[in-house]
Amino acid sequence: MSHNSFGHLFRFTTWGESHGPSIGCVVDGAPPRIELNENDIQKFLDKRKPGQSKFTSPRKESDEIKILSGIIEEDGKKLTTGTPISLLIENTDQRSKDYSDIEEKFRPGHADYTYFSKYGIRDVRGGGRQSARETAMRVAAGAIARKILPKVEIKGALVQLGEHKINRENWDDSFIEKNAFWSPDPTTIEIWEKYIEDLIKNGDSCGAIIEIIAKNVPIGLGAPVYGKLDAEIANGIMSINAVKGVEIGNGFEAATIKGSENSDQMFMKGDQPSFETNNSGGILGGISSGQDIVVRFAIKPTSSIRSNQKTVNKSGKNTEISTKGRHDPCVGIRAVPVGEAMIACVLADHFLRDRAQNS
Amino acid sequence: MSHNSFGHLFRFTTWGESHGPSIGCVVDGAPPRIELNENDIQKFLDKRKPGQSKFTSPRKESDEIKILSGIIEEDGKKLTTGTPISLLIENTDQRSKDYSDIEEKFRPGHADYTYFSKYGIRDVRGGGRQSARETAMRVAAGAIARKILPKVEIKGALVQLGEHKINRENWDDSFIEKNAFWSPDPTTIEIWEKYIEDLIKNGDSCGAIIEIIAKNVPIGLGAPVYGKLDAEIANGIMSINAVKGVEIGNGFEAATIKGSENSDQMFMKGDQPSFETNNSGGILGGISSGQDIVVRFAIKPTSSIRSNQKTVNKSGKNTEISTKGRHDPCVGIRAVPVGEAMIACVLADHFLRDRAQNS
Amino acid sequence: MSHNSFGHLFRFTTWGESHGPSIGCVVDGAPPRIELNENDIQKFLDKRKPGQSKFTSPRKESDEIKILSGIIEEDGKKLTTGTPISLLIENTDQRSKDYSDIEEKFRPGHADYTYFSKYGIRDVRGGGRQSARETAMRVAAGAIARKILPKVEIKGALVQLGEHKINRENWDDSFIEKNAFWSPDPTTIEIWEKYIEDLIKNGDSCGAIIEIIAKNVPIGLGAPVYGKLDAEIANGIMSINAVKGVEIGNGFEAATIKGSENSDQMFMKGDQPSFETNNSGGILGGISSGQDIVVRFAIKPTSSIRSNQKTVNKSGKNTEISTKGRHDPCVGIRAVPVGEAMIACVLADHFLRDRAQNS
Amino acid sequence: MSHNSFGHLFRFTTWGESHGPSIGCVVDGAPPRIELNENDIQKFLDKRKPGQSKFTSPRKESDEIKILSGIIEEDGKKLTTGTPISLLIENTDQRSKDYSDIEEKFRPGHADYTYFSKYGIRDVRGGGRQSARETAMRVAAGAIARKILPKVEIKGALVQLGEHKINRENWDDSFIEKNAFWSPDPTTIEIWEKYIEDLIKNGDSCGAIIEIIAKNVPIGLGAPVYGKLDAEIANGIMSINAVKGVEIGNGFEAATIKGSENSDQMFMKGDQPSFETNNSGGILGGISSGQDIVVRFAIKPTSSIRSNQKTVNKSGKNTEISTKGRHDPCVGIRAVPVGEAMIACVLADHFLRDRAQNS
Repeated sequence: MSHNSFGHLFRFTTWGESHGPSIGCVVDGAPPRIELNENDIQKFLDKRKPGQSKFTSPRKESDEIKILSGIIEEDGKKLTTGTPISLLIENTDQRSKDYSDIEEKFRPGHADYTYFSKYGIRDVRGGGRQSARETAMRVAAGAIARKILPKVEIKGALVQLGEHKINRENWDDSFIEKNAFWSPDPTTIEIWEKYIEDLIKNGDSCGAIIEIIAKNVPIGLGAPVYGKLDAEIANGIMSINAVKGVEIGNGFEAATIKGSENSDQMFMKGDQPSFETNNSGGILGGISSGQDIVVRFAIKPTSSIRSNQKTVNKSGKNTEISTKGRHDPCVGIRAVPVGEAMIACVLADHFLRDRAQNS
Repeated sequence: MSHNSFGHLFRFTTWGESHGPSIGCVVDGAPPRIELNENDIQKFLDKRKPGQSKFTSPRKESDEIKILSGIIEEDGKKLTTGTPISLLIENTDQRSKDYSDIEEKFRPGHADYTYFSKYGIRDVRGGGRQSARETAMRVAAGAIARKILPKVEIKGALVQLGEHKINRENWDDSFIEKNAFWSPDPTTIEIWEKYIEDLIKNGDSCGAIIEIIAKNVPIGLGAPVYGKLDAEIANGIMSINAVKGVEIGNGFEAATIKGSENSDQMFMKGDQPSFETNNSGGILGGISSGQDIVVRFAIKPTSSIRSNQKTVNKSGKNTEISTKGRHDPCVGIRAVPVGEAMIACVLADHFLRDRAQNS
Repeated sequence: MSHNSFGHLFRFTTWGESHGPSIGCVVDGAPPRIELNENDIQKFLDKRKPGQSKFTSPRKESDEIKILSGIIEEDGKKLTTGTPISLLIENTDQRSKDYSDIEEKFRPGHADYTYFSKYGIRDVRGGGRQSARETAMRVAAGAIARKILPKVEIKGALVQLGEHKINRENWDDSFIEKNAFWSPDPTTIEIWEKYIEDLIKNGDSCGAIIEIIAKNVPIGLGAPVYGKLDAEIANGIMSINAVKGVEIGNGFEAATIKGSENSDQMFMKGDQPSFETNNSGGILGGISSGQDIVVRFAIKPTSSIRSNQKTVNKSGKNTEISTKGRHDPCVGIRAVPVGEAMIACVLADHFLRDRAQNS
Repeated sequence: MSHNSFGHLFRFTTWGESHGPSIGCVVDGAPPRIELNENDIQKFLDKRKPGQSKFTSPRKESDEIKILSGIIEEDGKKLTTGTPISLLIENTDQRSKDYSDIEEKFRPGHADYTYFSKYGIRDVRGGGRQSARETAMRVAAGAIARKILPKVEIKGALVQLGEHKINRENWDDSFIEKNAFWSPDPTTIEIWEKYIEDLIKNGDSCGAIIEIIAKNVPIGLGAPVYGKLDAEIANGIMSINAVKGVEIGNGFEAATIKGSENSDQMFMKGDQPSFETNNSGGILGGISSGQDIVVRFAIKPTSSIRSNQKTVNKSGKNTEISTKGRHDPCVGIRAVPVGEAMIACVLADHFLRDRAQNS
């Protein structure tokens, strides 16, 4: 058991605080002879990094990944060896900041109070281990996971920003990577930009809903009854900072409709069983059905806001706090590649688990 | 790693199919010298068992729990010894039924197709391992988990049945155990009864939303970053049959409101830090804050319905299916004690995990 | 993590005390569609059970295995389904014995004192969980493990009884199952019989050294660096009651000879790499080499002896104890099938682990 | 499950190859607020590093430990935070060596052949992941483990070098750290020096037997039946490179003596139960008894020797090999601090595991 590891056969362990010298992770269990170089990972990290638009934190982090082990070169190709892959990113943007304000106060919505209650010690520099900077290593591990399942396509999109939802009829896959919000609906951009600008102006923040779709997932991944694919996806997604809810397929909507409407009826499509609908989100009884896996999750609004909030300090006195730092008005935007990565890791893990028992 | 085990330090492993001779589980890690007898478990099983009202399956299962190990008597009290507690329920209601219809056909919404694709073998008798009968052992393990945290109160309620929600202003804790639906709102009963009766008449089914509240949870349970309390609750809840979504605190609602509205501001209440609201659902940064833990989850409508559905069979032919058996019109009703049990198990596990590192 | 489970992908969890109603185990991770019936397990249990000769305990235990789950019948064959296999043996020989003597006293060489110090509670009936009766379930799990690796032959023999060693030049595989000692050397029998009879007469006991050889093990099982095949074999073997040492290949002898003598030099045998010797015992760098895996382990003499021993009681007083029960003069004899079973389980587990990463 | 992690609640994961840029490990589960700085670790690494005498490899590795995470400074003290501690050593002595000879050939006694058979890829540089350089990180993790159990003293000694044993009557604890062999017996030095010099002259190598003693271990560490302290020690020790056997207490000797001689009889020493002897090596039924824990293990002779050995190459041809590099004539010498570290890690892990269930 480890509180800082995720997965079973494809397993990664992350370490590091946002204001230490570096952060990193160790990825264990990847099969040997997979081509893997820094750029395979870097391209996904670049999707996540801050400072890419005025809608995310202006911090500049180069987030340059280094592979320290687990790879050798053979005939000009870098290949995995089957041994642990150690990844490291140096923290280059650690301004020697003044933390005296938050050193004593517990920031509402953050883990300051619960960490201190649990561990009896505070690492205030940049949030310590609770910082979302840790998610960079999830993205890195996810990049390796994708290499294990090269045919599976995993793509996330923002389907709601604060109170503004996309219109699903406008869904355009190709548009997602062309805008700073990962929106699949071009008509949202103007509205969302205005909405975010107002939030920034008011020192406020908003949440978001993200949808991740995994295509070409092999049938048979997952397992009854405590290794269910949906249960482990829920685990992985809910472990991302600020996530408050997760649903599969039609999710909470399933509670409202009737059985006769909800079951995905089957028919033969050529020689392959197929489904008329995908309310199940590609998972039946905890096992992938071959349909697209569809996962949605809710991110709460950034807790660090400029407007004043009531709180208490370590000495047990009432006080107020207002956060000045360089924070994302909506952390949900940068959670898109993180959500993709967690799905990739769960799928790679279950691919190996299934192969162990059923090949 | 085990696909049939849940938890780490408080860990249970379930086994058994609904139509085998018995089902059971092994609970490992319970501290020694806890008073525990069959009745401590039986009372929770009795809440879950079918046949208690016309709104659940008319199957009669006595579900009598037997404790086979891990307990000794000392001075007239039955006490845990710290060794594994083996629990068993004999399956008494295994009618020698005709499964010839479903033997060949994949029931839509069930795991028939995915199990067969994965394992290459079918256990059609009563759904085999995918049967919700397995959840009886979760309830049994949960009863032991509660003994480890005697001050924590965990109570579930049905807050939505199909399209009909409760009115939260009518919430009455004491009413929950007085009605067959676990509804906290007396005004729902007449509506829900009529709704279920209509579903039964039409051979249809509905889903539900369940809310579980855990009170008096110690501060500091859970852990960054892959042992988060909410992530493991999501895992446990999503592993329950038919669950399609799970949320903590205000959940998906958090995505819609602003940061200034969402953070639970703090103040001193006597000498204890306190919170003005509980949008976080009692968990901050994956660690319990001492507030009530609030979890909601969505159950899809029962997939076994009387009305005809299109499907395919093992030979790859289109066909139709209609289920005649004794099924619950809404499996969500019986999921209430199961959800409670999973929360209890996660909390007991994290209590031991926290004690290991931080006592 | 579980203190009562062994293995990772092929994993079993045992439960039960020697004087409870039954003992059992849950075997998880076995591939589906393996033929398995009670007799496949029973035949190995019959090798282990007491009362088979005057050289083992005269207790009569039928040790009849029941399979409660994880198996279905298809075309007249019983096949695994890929779900957990629950096994149970009823305890039929629980004489209502008088434990008043040992209730207060700690038996030297037993775990009475350490269990009580750790758990604060005593289960004196037949030794509770520390009883060697638990090993019956290891043998049962091992029988299933063998089914996963049908080509591998695992055979154990007693190579030393007390101070009397076998002569390796007389080794006769076919003789092993023909004598009550599992001796491979026919010339030992008369000497060992006399030796045991003298021990019984004097109320004393002796230890033994057991050697297990696994043939036809696939190359490539095991893993660097904390999943080494030899490390996990050492773990499994040392977890058997009364084992005090374990060695692989030439073992402790390797410390005495020189590098030039110890390395197993290689040569081509047809188109297959081969080895001139097998000092390594079939494992190099924690990974199987295709040579026979050779494991030896030492069992201490039975601690329950008739002659008087000094000890202390729960009240902290000096006292004496003499054990009258029906005990094995040498528990090592019955440990042969247990050692075989543990090796089988480690190999099956590593076979699945290797298949996950490297197929 | 991870093939590169050791332990459960106190758990470390190592990574790195001997000729990559660095090696490292992540230590998870350490309690918060333990004082820990680089020097606490460095002092144990300095005991292990090569180049300290003519009896070990002349490689020069500074082995300077860096702590990258998990520590903060409070009031001038460096304290653990309860989050993962990432450790790193840069590899400074990676000569750009000519590996062309061993690239094609499998070195006898090494894991070259088994790694290649398993993973289908070879990392010849310095032995890749099979290099004993990995053990530096065990020593580092062990240094942290010792901090968790500050009262426990763990000390190793070489009790046999090749064919030359110590005389136990000469045992002098204070002498151990004063000689290059970790010998407790001053009379061995001259003999051992001469023996090693002859081996070096002849291009040969020898093995060794190491004994580790842990004093002041709390009663009650360990657990039945698959978490036995001795089983997990055996696992940890056997996972060290070149170990071929491990024994606890009187070990293999227990097989030879009688029950009446072997049981450690008990008596009251003041108000504390005590033992007349320590044949059990401080562990009864898998649980520590409060006596000294005594572990011995055998290390095979260094496989890399200068004299010619027959072997085969990747193309399946017979060939010969002779190793020229800078190798230890007896790797056993440097295994002393590694063995100590593994015992420390098992004890720290079990201390936390016991505290979880039994505090």
